[in-house]
Amino acid sequence: MNSSLSVFVGTPSLLILSQSGLSKNPRKGFFMPPQPLRIGLAGLGTVGAGVIKLLDENAALVSRRANRDIVITAVSARDRARNRGVDTQRYAWVDNAPDLASREDVDCIVELIGGADGPALAMARATLAVGKPFVTANKAMIAHHGQALAALAEAKAVALKFEAAVGGGIPVIKGMREGLAANAVTAVYGILNGTCNYILSEIESTGKSFGVILAEAQALGYAEADPSFDVDGIDAGHKLAILATLGFGSAPDFDAVHLDGIRCVTPADIDYARTLGYRIKLIGLASLENGHLHQRVGAALVPMHHPLAHVGQSLNAVVVEGNYVGRLLFQGRGAGEGPTASAVVADLIDVARGEWGPPFAMPTASLSPLPKADADTIAERFYLRLTVKDQPGVLADITAALRDQAVSVESVIQRGSDTHGDVYFVLTTHITPTGAMLRALSHIAKLDSVTEKPLLMPIMN
Amino acid sequence: MNSSLSVFVGTPSLLILSQSGLSKNPRKGFFMPPQPLRIGLAGLGTVGAGVIKLLDENAALVSRRANRDIVITAVSARDRARNRGVDTQRYAWVDNAPDLASREDVDCIVELIGGADGPALAMARATLAVGKPFVTANKAMIAHHGQALAALAEAKAVALKFEAAVGGGIPVIKGMREGLAANAVTAVYGILNGTCNYILSEIESTGKSFGVILAEAQALGYAEADPSFDVDGIDAGHKLAILATLGFGSAPDFDAVHLDGIRCVTPADIDYARTLGYRIKLIGLASLENGHLHQRVGAALVPMHHPLAHVGQSLNAVVVEGNYVGRLLFQGRGAGEGPTASAVVADLIDVARGEWGPPFAMPTASLSPLPKADADTIAERFYLRLTVKDQPGVLADITAALRDQAVSVESVIQRGSDTHGDVYFVLTTHITPTGAMLRALSHIAKLDSVTEKPLLMPIMN
Repeated sequence: MNSSLSVFVGTPSLLILSQSGLSKNPRKGFFMPPQPLRIGLAGLGTVGAGVIKLLDENAALVSRRANRDIVITAVSARDRARNRGVDTQRYAWVDNAPDLASREDVDCIVELIGGADGPALAMARATLAVGKPFVTANKAMIAHHGQALAALAEAKAVALKFEAAVGGGIPVIKGMREGLAANAVTAVYGILNGTCNYILSEIESTGKSFGVILAEAQALGYAEADPSFDVDGIDAGHKLAILATLGFGSAPDFDAVHLDGIRCVTPADIDYARTLGYRIKLIGLASLENGHLHQRVGAALVPMHHPLAHVGQSLNAVVVEGNYVGRLLFQGRGAGEGPTASAVVADLIDVARGEWGPPFAMPTASLSPLPKADADTIAERFYLRLTVKDQPGVLADITAALRDQAVSVESVIQRGSDTHGDVYFVLTTHITPTGAMLRALSHIAKLDSVTEKPLLMPIMN
Repeated sequence: MNSSLSVFVGTPSLLILSQSGLSKNPRKGFFMPPQPLRIGLAGLGTVGAGVIKLLDENAALVSRRANRDIVITAVSARDRARNRGVDTQRYAWVDNAPDLASREDVDCIVELIGGADGPALAMARATLAVGKPFVTANKAMIAHHGQALAALAEAKAVALKFEAAVGGGIPVIKGMREGLAANAVTAVYGILNGTCNYILSEIESTGKSFGVILAEAQALGYAEADPSFDVDGIDAGHKLAILATLGFGSAPDFDAVHLDGIRCVTPADIDYARTLGYRIKLIGLASLENGHLHQRVGAALVPMHHPLAHVGQSLNAVVVEGNYVGRLLFQGRGAGEGPTASAVVADLIDVARGEWGPPFAMPTASLSPLPKADADTIAERFYLRLTVKDQPGVLADITAALRDQAVSVESVIQRGSDTHGDVYFVLTTHITPTGAMLRALSHIAKLDSVTEKPLLMPIMN
């Protein structure tokens, strides 16, 4: 008998034969004893150390659920000498991370280096090229290169998994990819960045400014020295692009995400919002508007009766709306050693069980970019906060600009401001096309009587 | 070449050969065009009609995600003539549901008949016996016979899936089985019965009694004519036994669930709870106490800051606490045509993709019952509401009974009752062993001055 294709028609109902031994499913592969899944781990920061701790502490449980052992055999990081609170001496050390992929004693790579490009991407390509499964927490890389990597994984029929890339320990990738697979998703949105949610929660509870809270968060290690990825919405945007891909079957399109952050949100805004019955949250939202994809990240007003209004501190939460399931909420810890390690090892267990498939739930070739929704086709309610000179005629100028764009005002609050003798002027609108609102705002921002950059935020239902 | 085992060592990294064609994975099975997954559907009630509607409306999307069509070929129900709002004429009709399993044109059974035994169980056994996958929404059957059925499925290497059995459209079975597979679960609890949550929400918002709200709910079709399964906690108990199995790797043990319902909860209790900062919810809770499994369903006080306090109306929500992931919340619609169909079809997509494994996440033989936790090893805070005669010495008798069991009182509320001239007397305790509390209560209930059956509820953290 030669080595070409032969068909088995004996008694067992399913037989899996595998070249590498990697993808064989030990549950069904009765004729082969389950071999351990041997991991090459790249990146030994907080999450990497968490993965090692989890695989140590929960080893018996993980083996029982995976039906085979999951063991780390080799690791790579920048600094070999650093004390990480875990024993890494027992693993082979590799200086150049992508070299992990080609090792004989490595079946599967876990990439925790981070960054959209550079060594992480080199490693992903090297791993998939040799036909080994690749597990990552790297949201930036998946948002930018997810489709190309998924195509590589598909070509080699190996797993590409990234549960930890969105929502930390919350199984929202799995929830959308599999749990909601029967639904046409109409919208997916949520609190995707724990740092921003922490900062906003702290501004609310202390009344301190964004800058003060940010500095405190940095001192506590809750925010990076360069906070821009978090507070300008970039991190949430990466996550949103991944969720949108899963929800709408579109190609990941991070560049089409409208990004806004929380730097402009003041304690006064949070106060006004509360008066109106809302909390301010950094919301990433993707929705389908007549076949056009709307993706945006920015501060938004969330009504107190909405479950997202009660997601405090550094928690994350994702809402998915499907045409059969209705509205689902997933909530949990969106970052940190334990939750992220939990998601990474869940992916490894799926790989070990052989329970995985197309990374974005459908053949990668069928993911195509959806046209970007136009601002005039999206209609929302808005909160607009202006800082204006305390003089006659100001209100008339502003309301005229709104009227000219047919923006209908729902409510107005005016209070004295604590600076310059200017006053804060806050209004909310009825539902209005975003384009009209932006045109009115552009006019308003140029008025002499408007002394600071206005802050415009959508109001969620 | 004969038909015995032969090993393929050519180029493709994975090759799946299947006897029945059922379990082959079309994603990897490049050499075979994907065949439709042909469904035999038993039970054409609300959920059955929902599954038909979903597979019609979302057909293209389901095919794209499953990478093959999912089509119903044959159906069975009690009454062939009944108008179900969907076209069932296009399917073969089978009078005796278990006969669906042996049909040549059926690859997979969906069972929506219900009931722990009877035709549903006959059908499950018949389906698994012929080595076909079985998808069900039947919580009672899985709670009672889940382990035996899982063993049958395992012996034939076919899928047994029951996402719709718990939490309707919420993918909590998948979340626990796969998403949290890396964690030692310490507790799983939640609002598992939408009817009870609806009734309690309505008592709170209207001040009407349980009996009145129940009658209204029955008139609206939100509660069954025989409401016992819902309001006495049986339905929630079935779901809890399934969640506990997934969380703790124990055998499903419905008989060990302590069951209590909501019949005794009065508008006054809800009022007292609110005064104390809590909402009353029917909570199913399973936790591990020193290797002993604690499972109970009953009304409990949930603090206003807890996410479960904000789960209103007929929504369901499940909290899972894991040693790495921390506390996760899943929330959504726990029943009804759309959400339940969403879960059933998600299971079918998993079957179609070949992404499934042991029903309870680990080899069925390794599921063994955990010893039941003893009331003296569980410690909680309690709410106790007594109806007492308005006479001297009553308080002394009650507090003495508590003192004798070393139960420490945290707070006391006494108000006039609207009946008999008796008074309601409400107290909360500090954390105390359940056994001690029950002994004290047994003594208190026998006091002459206590005129109605006391209501004891745990207070959640």
